Amino acid sequence: MNGIYKALWLNEEGDLEVIDQTLLPHVETTKVLKTCEDATLAIADMTVRGAGVIGSVAAFGVYLAVRQTKILDSEFNAKVQALKDARPTAVNLQWAVELMVERLRNASGDLVVKAKEEAIALNNDEAEKSLEIARLGADLIEAIAKRENRKVNILTHCNAGWLAVIDMGTALAPIYEAKRRGIDLHVWVDETRPRNQGANLTAWELGQDGVEHTIIADNTGGHLMQHGMVDIVFVGADRVSRQGDVANKIGTYLKALAAHAHSVPFYVAFPTSTFDFEVIDGVKDIPIETRSEDEVRYMVGLHENGNVEKVLVVPQGSRALNYGFDVTPNRYITGLITERGIVDADLLKIEELFEDLI
Amino acid sequence: MNGIYKALWLNEEGDLEVIDQTLLPHVETTKVLKTCEDATLAIADMTVRGAGVIGSVAAFGVYLAVRQTKILDSEFNAKVQALKDARPTAVNLQWAVELMVERLRNASGDLVVKAKEEAIALNNDEAEKSLEIARLGADLIEAIAKRENRKVNILTHCNAGWLAVIDMGTALAPIYEAKRRGIDLHVWVDETRPRNQGANLTAWELGQDGVEHTIIADNTGGHLMQHGMVDIVFVGADRVSRQGDVANKIGTYLKALAAHAHSVPFYVAFPTSTFDFEVIDGVKDIPIETRSEDEVRYMVGLHENGNVEKVLVVPQGSRALNYGFDVTPNRYITGLITERGIVDADLLKIEELFEDLI
Repeated sequence: MNGIYKALWLNEEGDLEVIDQTLLPHVETTKVLKTCEDATLAIADMTVRGAGVIGSVAAFGVYLAVRQTKILDSEFNAKVQALKDARPTAVNLQWAVELMVERLRNASGDLVVKAKEEAIALNNDEAEKSLEIARLGADLIEAIAKRENRKVNILTHCNAGWLAVIDMGTALAPIYEAKRRGIDLHVWVDETRPRNQGANLTAWELGQDGVEHTIIADNTGGHLMQHGMVDIVFVGADRVSRQGDVANKIGTYLKALAAHAHSVPFYVAFPTSTFDFEVIDGVKDIPIETRSEDEVRYMVGLHENGNVEKVLVVPQGSRALNYGFDVTPNRYITGLITERGIVDADLLKIEELFEDLI
Repeated sequence: MNGIYKALWLNEEGDLEVIDQTLLPHVETTKVLKTCEDATLAIADMTVRGAGVIGSVAAFGVYLAVRQTKILDSEFNAKVQALKDARPTAVNLQWAVELMVERLRNASGDLVVKAKEEAIALNNDEAEKSLEIARLGADLIEAIAKRENRKVNILTHCNAGWLAVIDMGTALAPIYEAKRRGIDLHVWVDETRPRNQGANLTAWELGQDGVEHTIIADNTGGHLMQHGMVDIVFVGADRVSRQGDVANKIGTYLKALAAHAHSVPFYVAFPTSTFDFEVIDGVKDIPIETRSEDEVRYMVGLHENGNVEKVLVVPQGSRALNYGFDVTPNRYITGLITERGIVDADLLKIEELFEDLI
């Protein structure tokens, strides 16, 4: 799988092939999704995850649905409704499904061919946005490097790299681009409990690309910022409200509070499709997914016997609660990096830049 | 081991027997410490941990040293110096060793008998303080219960129960006392990566005592406080500066920031022995222990084969960094609960209450 740097692609049979992200970094393997139901399950069980890639797989999921039903009948509607409901927080999922269905309703000719073209087009658009986000974010890193004239220390939470958003990710895209520009940098990778997307996915991605990084417990960021060991924070987003409140992986908010306390710039990177302009107050109105308590109760890793196995890390009788996301209020955010530019997390500024979409 | 509720005791042979905290909650077993070197190793490898219990074991460690050397010679000095250096952050360790040595230097008669008596006396004193902390903290919980007339939700980080501080702990002591008073309460238990003392020890302790609790990833506290799901936070301390800055388990600072942002009372409970009156600015001058990166890279838990085993949870080639503690500046702390009363985390207030010790 080395050198692929893609989270998903259409294989020779026209099926969707995705990297199985549940087994990384220990096992590098793929899954083939042949039906809309396969795509729904892959999103729900987190074979694929990350706001952008969820949208990407959903777009191809609509294509797979059309391939099954040929027409946009009630069976098709039921399939894409289940797809849309696979996970509640990431708005890209709903956005991608609705956009695909709308385009198909307005289409003529062979719907299967059309659906495939539209899904590819949607993905190409998203990939372009990722590259623009990379450029804008890398400019911020470059400015720090020039000002401080030393290695730049970046902190990130969860995974918003190419496993999460095609083509280069969102939060990690500026890092990859800065490295290409020859900037000396180092990344603090939050482990990101309970599912460890930082330790499992971000560290693996950065390692593949030769980016210097250090994994830390999620508890560590406050201490690092207090001691001047973080120059800038980049995170991704699963849904951003019209006033710039950001739903992202649980724990993002704690890092934003620490960054605010120590005047560390805190940037959120995402494509326009992650905005939910219908929601103003994100803390109040963005739905937060509660996932299985077993994600907290068990840890999955590589056993010395060479297999990926799980161990119970709590007392047998203890319960756990597992919120997948939290919402960071706009006042703790330095800026939102979108493909249209970097914008303040502020209602009027956002309405100005995205007037045509609201 | 059920119903013991003691982290350490002298057995019939006069050796120190301690609960092996590295295997909890999955295996309940003890270790017997026969020499000062055994005590030093038990502190360094975290067979025993928690500021108070480290001090307790250290006091008995000095007794074990005297039992070995009979006199306070250079061999004795080397042993107790190594004991004092077993871990750097918890000041109770240095305090207990220095107090024991001072008392022995001023003692007459059989030094072994004297050392045993002094270690027991020191521990009895600490146990008394824990009971007073329990009463003072329970009053705070009771006031919330009366005001809100519903279940009180408490958040705690790491373990500061009876496994950490004899007799009832510090942060957990008010919870045990409140439960005895019949107050309806529920505890949010931070998992506390990387060593999971919350999930492993606090959840186990609370379960033994029938206290309702829920384990959460360390990332979750900000979201809970933002949504009014935490009434009060209790944490312990490993070292507290003269102006009230608190060194405690890594991640405490992030919870203090969140509590501050949402006006949730944030209390730190500890006996006077945890003060380091020599240090004013805790952020600048309290040494922070860096532990093995393997505590981040591996997770230990119960495998379905019934054994406690470890799994690798990061990519093979990735490095980790493991700070054991952080320092919460005094301005984020609502109050310090000591056996002398609840005091503001403020230089002048602390100097006033502890004038005789400074």
